[in-house]
Amino acid sequence: MVKEIVLANAPTGFPVIELGKADSTFEIKEVELLELQDNQLLLQTIFVSNDPAQRGWIQKDQNSDRAYLPPILPGDRMRAASIAKVLKSTSSSFKEGTLVQCYGGWAEQLVVNAKDAFPLPDLPGVSPSVFLGAVGVPGLTAYFGLKDVCKLQEGQVIIISGAAGATGNVAVQLAKHVLKASKVIAIAGSDEKCQWLREIGADVALNYKSSSFPNALVEAAKPSYADCYFDNVGGPILNACLSVIKRNGCVAACGAISAYNDPSQMILSNWAEIIINRITVKGFIVMDYYHRRAEAVEVISSAIKEGKLSVVGGETIVRCTEFKEIPKVWIRLFRGENTGKLVTQVAD
Amino acid sequence: MVKEIVLANAPTGFPVIELGKADSTFEIKEVELLELQDNQLLLQTIFVSNDPAQRGWIQKDQNSDRAYLPPILPGDRMRAASIAKVLKSTSSSFKEGTLVQCYGGWAEQLVVNAKDAFPLPDLPGVSPSVFLGAVGVPGLTAYFGLKDVCKLQEGQVIIISGAAGATGNVAVQLAKHVLKASKVIAIAGSDEKCQWLREIGADVALNYKSSSFPNALVEAAKPSYADCYFDNVGGPILNACLSVIKRNGCVAACGAISAYNDPSQMILSNWAEIIINRITVKGFIVMDYYHRRAEAVEVISSAIKEGKLSVVGGETIVRCTEFKEIPKVWIRLFRGENTGKLVTQVAD
Repeated sequence: MVKEIVLANAPTGFPVIELGKADSTFEIKEVELLELQDNQLLLQTIFVSNDPAQRGWIQKDQNSDRAYLPPILPGDRMRAASIAKVLKSTSSSFKEGTLVQCYGGWAEQLVVNAKDAFPLPDLPGVSPSVFLGAVGVPGLTAYFGLKDVCKLQEGQVIIISGAAGATGNVAVQLAKHVLKASKVIAIAGSDEKCQWLREIGADVALNYKSSSFPNALVEAAKPSYADCYFDNVGGPILNACLSVIKRNGCVAACGAISAYNDPSQMILSNWAEIIINRITVKGFIVMDYYHRRAEAVEVISSAIKEGKLSVVGGETIVRCTEFKEIPKVWIRLFRGENTGKLVTQVAD
Repeated sequence: MVKEIVLANAPTGFPVIELGKADSTFEIKEVELLELQDNQLLLQTIFVSNDPAQRGWIQKDQNSDRAYLPPILPGDRMRAASIAKVLKSTSSSFKEGTLVQCYGGWAEQLVVNAKDAFPLPDLPGVSPSVFLGAVGVPGLTAYFGLKDVCKLQEGQVIIISGAAGATGNVAVQLAKHVLKASKVIAIAGSDEKCQWLREIGADVALNYKSSSFPNALVEAAKPSYADCYFDNVGGPILNACLSVIKRNGCVAACGAISAYNDPSQMILSNWAEIIINRITVKGFIVMDYYHRRAEAVEVISSAIKEGKLSVVGGETIVRCTEFKEIPKVWIRLFRGENTGKLVTQVAD
């Protein structure tokens, strides 16, 4: 028998993380592993990815028609990207002992079909957890968001919120050092995060919790306003940014973490700016670009090798001593406690 | 001496329409008309246009940098499109007695440079007031909003809010009878307006004040959701529409009348739909298309002549017996009291 964590009660507001309560969002389950069939792998989970999007996947009463992935229902194992070690293999493509990427979820061990596991890209000298962050979904999101959604050009001004997060910090570095933005304005939630963002390439880094934030944002955007805004957070920060985007500028709507647990926070009193200044808001999901994954991995890997993209500081790895701690690490995402990619390590 | 109405106190909330109070938004002024110079016209205002956008022009503490027209400041005559009669002319292009279009504003009589007045398009059998509505700025807004912003194709499904308004009713008729949408879902604020919208081409017309509105909208959008949403109102209706726009669909952000007097009403709890369903929101201002005015006037005029676009019912003309009544008519726009274009007639 092995442990996994399943959805117990689909939340509408802030998830209840403590296990064992009547309204707990999650619960622990013991499951029996099936014998391997042909072309299957027995995996030991090593690293589990924590992503704001996971909150959307468990939202109560979703219209499955409109979701981009099937909703996770009570009783289902929590979905998460992961890095796992192959313990047994009946596939000629994977040797025992190698590491793979997959959507293994919150499971100690699990059996997957070989076609649902992927070898790690070749990038020596980095922790395998990087394939959940800068060279994983968050990094791809940053790359395609800048390149295809913002269509960021050399010399332009860009604002990036959630800038100290997994996607944000890669976006800041790619915008400045690879796509050659003339000014990167980064927004984050602490002075320490802002200091780090300046070190990795932000021309200006603003703490949105500071009372001077709205004015500082206006000053930072002078003299020409911003060509685009890469929005990871929604809410009051999106609202503030609408008033400093250039005429005919754009918003890449990537995430809205500020409102995932309370959508009523999405008050956009500056909406008229979208009309008056002919702003285009483009929602996007990185899955739509997966057919171009190799292109993004190549650009990001090269940037790492050339020293243009630092993964030092861009990652917070939390080692769980007990499997049941996984939800407690995950919820830190929504408290703004982590810097860079938040990864949970469940085994060595 | 002639009368004009000027801005007294720039509003932040709902305008104070009663004249003569300490906080009145407007006040009456008597002004002396200057002698005509060369190439000038003395005009008698006949019809004054009432447009939601005027509320934006008088908003307090605007950043003139970001406005699409210079803000109207206290002491300035209220800006409005108008149809006027030429009383005297020192221009060879305009004869006395003819009617012209201009931005004459809230003035009984005024002197303008001939280059700022335009002859009325040739369209026999309609009231000249139509050049402030279906064949004026609202009609052009409907045309370019559908054609260039929504890029509405034959056979598509479109939702139009503020559908009984000046822009909305033209959009409904053009979408259905000229651009051949398969389904036009119109949203308005009374059962009478909805009845009229069905008569002029709406496949479905929904009263947003009805308690069944949210469900009725979902039902109306079945089975395929809407390709685009022409948004004239913002606020809760925009929010509801976000959940019934097709994947990769679009919102043409044309106006937000629901929030002009109280921007805090712009609560978009469904914002995540923009991300999840890759929706594009495009703000636009009709001025950007003025160089293609002739194209729009041609399409709209032809539709009127061919009986595809009715201007009967699409216009509410209020005859003011006293000049000072102008603001009282204008404010009806924000109370949802008018059907179609609201025009104020100040002289015969």
